[in-house]
Formats: sequence, structure tokens, C-alpha cells
Amino acid sequence: MENIEPVCWIGGVDGYLRLIDQTALPAELKCIECRDIATLWEAIKMLRVRGAPAIGVAAAYGLCLAAQSALRLDTGSQAEPSQLVHPSTDQAQRSAGPFHTARSSTNARDAAAAISSGALLDRLMEAADYLQSSRPTAVNLSWALRRVLHAAEAMRDREPLDIAEAVLAEAHAICEEDRQMCREIGRHGATLLRDGQSVLTHCNAGALATAGYGTALGVIRAAVEAGKRLQVFACETRPLLQGARLTAWELQRSGIEVTLICDSMAADLMRQGRIGAAIVGADRIARNGDVANKIGTYSLAVAAAAHAVPFYVAAPSSTFDLSITSGREIPIEQRDPREVTHAFGRQIAPEGVAVYNPAFDVTPAALLSAIVCERGIIRPVDESSIRRLLEGR
Amino acid sequence: MENIEPVCWIGGVDGYLRLIDQTALPAELKCIECRDIATLWEAIKMLRVRGAPAIGVAAAYGLCLAAQSALRLDTGSQAEPSQLVHPSTDQAQRSAGPFHTARSSTNARDAAAAISSGALLDRLMEAADYLQSSRPTAVNLSWALRRVLHAAEAMRDREPLDIAEAVLAEAHAICEEDRQMCREIGRHGATLLRDGQSVLTHCNAGALATAGYGTALGVIRAAVEAGKRLQVFACETRPLLQGARLTAWELQRSGIEVTLICDSMAADLMRQGRIGAAIVGADRIARNGDVANKIGTYSLAVAAAAHAVPFYVAAPSSTFDLSITSGREIPIEQRDPREVTHAFGRQIAPEGVAVYNPAFDVTPAALLSAIVCERGIIRPVDESSIRRLLEGR
Repeated sequence: MENIEPVCWIGGVDGYLRLIDQTALPAELKCIECRDIATLWEAIKMLRVRGAPAIGVAAAYGLCLAAQSALRLDTGSQAEPSQLVHPSTDQAQRSAGPFHTARSSTNARDAAAAISSGALLDRLMEAADYLQSSRPTAVNLSWALRRVLHAAEAMRDREPLDIAEAVLAEAHAICEEDRQMCREIGRHGATLLRDGQSVLTHCNAGALATAGYGTALGVIRAAVEAGKRLQVFACETRPLLQGARLTAWELQRSGIEVTLICDSMAADLMRQGRIGAAIVGADRIARNGDVANKIGTYSLAVAAAAHAVPFYVAAPSSTFDLSITSGREIPIEQRDPREVTHAFGRQIAPEGVAVYNPAFDVTPAALLSAIVCERGIIRPVDESSIRRLLEGR
Repeated sequence: MENIEPVCWIGGVDGYLRLIDQTALPAELKCIECRDIATLWEAIKMLRVRGAPAIGVAAAYGLCLAAQSALRLDTGSQAEPSQLVHPSTDQAQRSAGPFHTARSSTNARDAAAAISSGALLDRLMEAADYLQSSRPTAVNLSWALRRVLHAAEAMRDREPLDIAEAVLAEAHAICEEDRQMCREIGRHGATLLRDGQSVLTHCNAGALATAGYGTALGVIRAAVEAGKRLQVFACETRPLLQGARLTAWELQRSGIEVTLICDSMAADLMRQGRIGAAIVGADRIARNGDVANKIGTYSLAVAAAAHAVPFYVAAPSSTFDLSITSGREIPIEQRDPREVTHAFGRQIAPEGVAVYNPAFDVTPAALLSAIVCERGIIRPVDESSIRRLLEGR
């Protein structure tokens, strides 16, 4: 199977973040380069990068961009950070950026000397707050930001450039761990799917939603890699059609049989006995096992329960938010009505009509057959099973 | 409230059928003129006219067009029927068409004389078969065609023009009865809705789906006319977005408060307790009460049952097909995959992806709280209640 890397840091501490622009799929496989956090914020907000784990990884790298900016802006240069920092081509960037071998670069040490380590840490915290505001629901976003801030804080007594290097190292670690976690989720989850089964999925919890491989689609990939023949039904996932645009594209590209349906067709397929299992990702999981995920997940879970179709959630353990007791405490982002009233710029509803457009819904734990995470399978889904797996109790 | 007439015959036996082109809504209120059955067949197939009752009325008038064609084509003229028959403006058409006062028209009698009454009846039967092939699931289509054929057959011993007149009279009767039926459905159904309630609907079972007023939306209209304050949640209804394009437009135009949602959001609203009742139309109802309706209806009915939300179907008694024992016998039309993979010509899924795209699903009677028809309310929904109301047993 081909590797799909939606989030990739290019270069060293002076590098940049390359994202697959997921809003251009499936028509075009286009990459965007983020060289400042404003560009990244827009990319997260506009869902150019989306999927809770991928957002977490991207945000972690966002703090590398913030560190760059802080190190440079305080040298007194009038140039925009992106102009100042980056040579004009990727190749130059990869091989000869001024900070590429930053530890040994006199320039870098000089530039970095102009800001104190404490001031840099302040700037990183500001940047984290800013990035956090792009998508309020995804818990991985704040988890990744906190983790990178913690790594930076541990270097408070060191030079600013050491802090920047630690930020990048931590972001790389988050990225690498995410890929490894997806493989582990796949390994555990694959045991839940049977040879010959039809598997329903919603939105995109795939390679595109993570640093690669995917969570829900990672389970499907792992089962297929283990020799099981699966047929996937992908819900198109209105309003933004991540299922049609991304999941169908990704599975087709990986050679996994996929049939596209409208969201409203899933229950009908279940009634016909044509769905063996359903598996989706998660944006946040409360400590009682309630799951916030893409709008429409709850509807599928209700239908699955009515037809005795097993309903699985696959997500890294960073998706759990043990600070909240249930799904009721999860803030649900309301998005622009135009996502519903307009399709690719064309108006599909009358002018001025009221719209309800939540990004997520909450599926209560009682409707879930199991949650698969990198540490294993949580079943039944309740607080004690969750704590047992996550905290080793 | 403004009258919305999606199907309207203009003129006398030599007239034509004017349809609102529902594929152009909500951007444009555009009418098309059907002067031959091929144009009408295309309009039904392409959903320019849609909704089971509206299709029935349109098809009935289609037999008027077939009668015109038979009467004219057999005069030996080389001109296209539409060129031959119709003056160039509507105004001329309404007031001075050559057959407008056809009974007294020498031309008409002469033209009609060239075909025997038996031959005309044969042509009408062929036309009925042809029109029937445009949408196989809607039972009103075949019901209306049979009814008009029956009226024509009863005139077998009369002159061809008398048959054509009888065909038009029967089509007018079907149209008028449909409007009256909608009012009666509204009157009965309004008692099911409570002041202050939020009502969910799917697809468009409104004025646009009937000869006017609507079935499911007729119930909502009647309740509002009776002074109840209702808030409607309209499911957009993928893939063809009849909810977004037609229901939202129609309700907005009628001054009824409407909020548009994606189909996958309905269950979430139910979980929040924000839906008081759901009401939809029907394309065919089996004698056990199983209902074929727009794809997505079943999903909503499952969600409604899970949340104890009353789920109502509103449809004229012509929608019942007592010849079939259950929903399993209802043929389900599969439609073009491009309806799912393309939105207004733009590709939203990868090239060559497999698609499942049924036009309808079947909701079992057990999930229905009641069926409202012009004769009253069927509750509980089962064969004996249905027979009691329809056959007066």
C-alpha cells in the first residue's frame, strides 16, 4: 500500500510544515507549505488539515513555526518571518537553510541570543492559545500543544535555540508516535473484523486524518494486510463530504474495495443485512466512554444498535479526556451555515434560510461495542474499562 | 399563503401541460411546457416534476398529450405535433387555440375523424406503458394512468374527440381531487401536531409534490392555518437535495419557520429533545402498512423510534397498493451513480468509485405512529386498520 502523509515537517529547526490540502481532494493532490502559524491556523480552521490526530501533529509542528518566528522577529529585522527565514526553493530549504544544522550555526546562535528563553516560552504559550482557537472540539490539539509546551518548559534554563530544537524534537516524537499508534490500533482492531465482511465507516478516520495509516481505516488496512477480504461502505459525510472526497479516494488508492453511499442510506443497508460492522474515529472521548465524532456518527450508532451491527470506535489514547465525566461536557463547534446551503460555491437552498450545522455529535458509550486504542480493546465501554486500559488499573 | 401549482393544464383539449421545473429551484422559478409525452417522460425521469401525487396528476395529463398526438398525427400532417397544434403564445393558447372550444370545432372533428376510437384507445395504452416506465416505484403514476384509461375505455363507442375530452376531464378530476385530498389530509393530520412543536420532515411532500398544498407539508400548513406555531426542521435529502431546494423554499415562501439540516443531523436533534414529531410523505404503501418513501426515511424512522418521537406518514389513499402484502414486494429504483458522485456537475468523489444509490427505502409499519390519508388517520398501522379505513370494513 502507498504511504499517504498528510502532515510532514521538511528540514531542520528552520524548516517548514508541508500539508496535503485536503479541500482540493479528490480532484487534485496539492500540498501547501506552512511557514507561519497564521497559515497553519487557517489550514486547520478551513479543514485543509483535519482529523483529530493529524491536527494534533500539525499543531505540534505549529509551535516549531512559532519558535522560528520568535527567534527571528526579535533580531530587529523588518522582513516578514517567512521571507527572512526561508530560501526560495524547497531544495535549498532542505539542504542549505541557514538553521538547517542549527546547533553549529553561528547565525542561529546570534539571532536566538536576541530573545530570552523566558520570552520565547511566553511566545510559545501565546502561539498555543492561538492555535487552540482554530478547532475547539478536538482534544488532540490541546493535548499535543500541552505536550510540546511541557518539553519546551523543561528547557527553560537552556538557550532559546535549544528550546526550539526541543520543540521540534517533541513534534517529531508526536508524529512518529502517531504513526506507531495507528499501526497498534490496526493490529488490535483487525481482530474485530471478519474475512468477507462489509464494514461501514463515516467521515475520514484514515491516513489523511493522522500522520499516516489511519485509525478506523487503519483497522481496515491492518485487517486487509492480514489477508481478510473486506468491502467498505463509505458514508459521504455531509456537509463537507470527507467520506466521498477523502475516504473513497484513500481506500481506492490503497486498493481496498469501497462503495460510496449517502449518509441516509446506511440504515437501509443494515436492514438488508449488508453491513457486518461499523467503525469510526473520534474527536474526543469522555471518561465514561461517550464519543464526540463527526456529525452523523450518532445517527449511524442508533441504526447499528437497532440492527445488532457492532459499532466500533478507533482512536489513540490521546483522544480520551478523563477530565470530563460525560459527553454533555464536550463543547460542540457550530460551523458556517454556508457549508450546508452552498455546495462548491453554488447555492442549493433558498437565500436566508436558517441552518443548524454542528461539526460533531456525541454518541453515548452504551451504543458502542468497543473502543480500540493503541493499548488494546476497551470492552465494554465504561469508565472502569477505560481507566483499566489507560491507567493500568 | 401563496398557491404553488407545480402541475397545471393550460387550455382545452388542445392545451398543454405547464410544470414548474423543480430542478431549477431554489435559484430560479422556471416553468416548462410539455406538448408531447416524450418531454413529459423526460421531466418525470429527471425529477423536474416529482412527488408521487404530482407525478400521478402529470401522467394523467400526459394521456391528454397522447390523445392530441394520436388525433393529429393521423391526419397525415408532416409537422411536429407541438408546432401543428399550438399558437406561439400562451395568451393565444388560452383564448384562441384551434381546439379550445373543441366540441364545436370543425377542424377538430375533421382531424379526429382520421383515427378510429379503437386505434386511439390503443395509442393511449401504449402511451400509458411508456409513461409508466419513467418512475417504476411511484404507485400513483400507474393508478392515475389506469384511471384515465378506464375513463377513455368507457367512451369506446363514441367519437375519438369525445374520448380525448373524457381523458382531459378525468385528468382534471384527478388534479382537483388531489388538491381536495391534500386539504383533507391536512385537516386530519393537523390534529396530530401540537402548538409550539418542532416538526421534522424529509424530502418534499409539499405543494410541489402534489397538485398543490402538499401531504406532509399540507398537514403542517393546516396546523399553522389553525393557529399552531410550528418550527420545521427540513432534512436536505441527499442526493438530490429536495429538502434544501424545495421544502425550505416552499415553507419559506409560505411564511412557515424552517431550519435546514443535513440528513445525518436529525438523530442528534432528537437526542437533544428538539424534535416533537416527524412527518413524511410516501411513494407506495403495502397493505401491511410498510411504506416506500425517499431514501433516508427509514433512517429517520429508526432514530424516531429510538427517541420515542412520533413518526407520521401523510399520503392520499391512492398511495396504498393493496395488491402487495409487504414492503418486500416494492421494487426499488436504483438511480444514476452520478447523483452521488457529482454535485451540480462538479465531481465530489474519486473517478470510478462504486456507488449504491437507491431512490427509496422501505420503512416497516411497526415504526410508524400513524398514517394520515384524506379519509382519516390509520392508527395503529396494520392491515386491518388500513382495510377498515380504505374499504370501510
